[in-house]
Amino acid sequence: MTFPVVGMVGGGQLARMTHEAGIPLGIRFKLLSDTPQDSAALVAGDVVIGDYRDLDTLRDFARGCDVVTFDHEHVPTEHLRALEADGVPVRPGPDALVHAQDKGVMRARLDALGIPCPRHRIVADPADVVAFAAEGGGFPVVLKTVRGGYDGKGVWVVRNAEQAAEPFRAGVPVLAEEKVEFVRELAANVVRSPHGQAVAYPVVESIQVDGVCDTVIAPAPGLSDQSSAGAQELALRIAAELDVVGHLAVELFETRDGRTLVNELAMRPHNSGHWTMDGAVTSQFANHVRAVLDLPLGDPRPRAPWTVMCNVLGGDYPDMYSGYLHCMARDPQLKIHMYGKDVKPGRKVGHVNTYGADLADVRERARHAADYLRGTITQ
Amino acid sequence: MTFPVVGMVGGGQLARMTHEAGIPLGIRFKLLSDTPQDSAALVAGDVVIGDYRDLDTLRDFARGCDVVTFDHEHVPTEHLRALEADGVPVRPGPDALVHAQDKGVMRARLDALGIPCPRHRIVADPADVVAFAAEGGGFPVVLKTVRGGYDGKGVWVVRNAEQAAEPFRAGVPVLAEEKVEFVRELAANVVRSPHGQAVAYPVVESIQVDGVCDTVIAPAPGLSDQSSAGAQELALRIAAELDVVGHLAVELFETRDGRTLVNELAMRPHNSGHWTMDGAVTSQFANHVRAVLDLPLGDPRPRAPWTVMCNVLGGDYPDMYSGYLHCMARDPQLKIHMYGKDVKPGRKVGHVNTYGADLADVRERARHAADYLRGTITQ
Repeated sequence: MTFPVVGMVGGGQLARMTHEAGIPLGIRFKLLSDTPQDSAALVAGDVVIGDYRDLDTLRDFARGCDVVTFDHEHVPTEHLRALEADGVPVRPGPDALVHAQDKGVMRARLDALGIPCPRHRIVADPADVVAFAAEGGGFPVVLKTVRGGYDGKGVWVVRNAEQAAEPFRAGVPVLAEEKVEFVRELAANVVRSPHGQAVAYPVVESIQVDGVCDTVIAPAPGLSDQSSAGAQELALRIAAELDVVGHLAVELFETRDGRTLVNELAMRPHNSGHWTMDGAVTSQFANHVRAVLDLPLGDPRPRAPWTVMCNVLGGDYPDMYSGYLHCMARDPQLKIHMYGKDVKPGRKVGHVNTYGADLADVRERARHAADYLRGTITQ
Repeated sequence: MTFPVVGMVGGGQLARMTHEAGIPLGIRFKLLSDTPQDSAALVAGDVVIGDYRDLDTLRDFARGCDVVTFDHEHVPTEHLRALEADGVPVRPGPDALVHAQDKGVMRARLDALGIPCPRHRIVADPADVVAFAAEGGGFPVVLKTVRGGYDGKGVWVVRNAEQAAEPFRAGVPVLAEEKVEFVRELAANVVRSPHGQAVAYPVVESIQVDGVCDTVIAPAPGLSDQSSAGAQELALRIAAELDVVGHLAVELFETRDGRTLVNELAMRPHNSGHWTMDGAVTSQFANHVRAVLDLPLGDPRPRAPWTVMCNVLGGDYPDMYSGYLHCMARDPQLKIHMYGKDVKPGRKVGHVNTYGADLADVRERARHAADYLRGTITQ
């Protein structure tokens, strides 16, 4: 046994932060990135530029890797099967990952496991959407393309047959779901290794704005021990049943009557786990690396009573660095994580973490820094 | 203002960990490394291979950098002055760095500042060493070449004129120092920025084995508040008087009668500060980057009552990775930091950090992991 090569497909910020977490482990990190300007490609030493949709490119890349893992879920499932057939450990494997790639497959599997989900079914056309609405609580209905959506893309909330036409235009299968009247959104994040060890992070509250994650509070305020343990057990069960390897984020709706319904699954480090970089003994990125290498997992427990993450989105002015002076001077405990990405309005370009014993203070500090860096506030 | 390029000269583990700490800040990190196999060169994206002793190489490297800083103290002082004359911000600057490069210059300056040091003077030959011994407490006497020593290299403890011959063979000036009968060694680490902001880390105890740092305990056990504050003030004063920018380590002897004498200065991240990676709100590496960029400094306070660092030295078997299974399973809170270096007996190839409320437990865990990874123990 010697220090292994972890190959990661995709050069986004999740790969960037995975590389950062892998450095202390002494492993070799190899990246397959679309361009040399991608977030992770800017900071990694061993970078292959290529298209993950091309099987030959993937095969060449995988040849030098002891294990291949992912920054995103977009690698075609059949390519993953081909890599596995070549003898490359692919983690998570295609049989697990397909549940994060295809929302139809995911819903069918969770149904079979008896795991509570929003009411849903695959719909054929706008008339079928009207029928779906009539079968349950009526409009509005949520429509999702089964593949390719993220951060609100590929998701529509429709109120009538006319609005329901748009999602079908791409010609891919469309999933209809009831629009859940949730109290809030939670995320239960777990990490699982090939031989079945698993750890569960504290359940967090995730606040979305315009379909994009804005704030994460760890642990979720006011969540009962019973609900928290229930959500952790649910996520651990999904990870085991689907044979997930690596980080699994289970996005949940908490309903008014205290139920939790599964919204989405992600099988990679996830925005709802960014708080762990400064708030947990072992970050989601470090544990993802350990899991894909089948190393014993690190302690997922929090290091502070409260940790808050706020995403930094691109605003109207491109110079985020100038905001460092004010933010760092105002809060010497602030943890900034920038991704090296060009600023475009609404694009996730970084996040900030704060922690401490007073939740109101911790939230205010994170909110202020994220707003100041974006340029929404000027003092 | 836009995201700056920090150039670091030297590809060792300090540069590796500085790169790691710079990633979240979104800065560009550019490395001048002797070889592509150097510790930092393995993990950084923008690496120039070249010889730091060659001024043209340094000038070419510095051209793309907003600031140049250092992994080691070996860049010739006159080269640093040439870069400054070119208009490149060099941090720490040559007028500060010369005190960490030349032990004779350092001692003369500390004398002028009235800062307690071991009795010392430059000696001309073995007969002069005998005279130096006779002037004070007799033999043994410590001899050091004024430039180029580290980790016990360039240092001799001699008991007579015959033993004193060796240090003079290199033909460089030799400094004689009394062999201090210290109770223990301490380190006071501070970080200072160009406009004079400075932060002081808790004073730590540093335990050396065969002249090489073995264990660091933060904070130093049993050190009185008065002694701790005194050592911090001493280090802050040295940083200000010498106009240090970046991390300054002041290695101290604690004597039986409660005095502290300055042993060595290092103007870069330092082994005695590695505990801060997991044990402080802001690591020495993150604060070094912030300092050389003249950004506000981060909170240096500890995150746990006790943090212990043990260096991992190369042992007789080269496969450190196989030890991960046992060490990680035994202690899910263990923080491993490996440098990607080939294992050679006695070579620093990594370190481990542990933290917690019970010092005995924290020490045992770090000790065990370091010994197990080295292969000194097998269970």
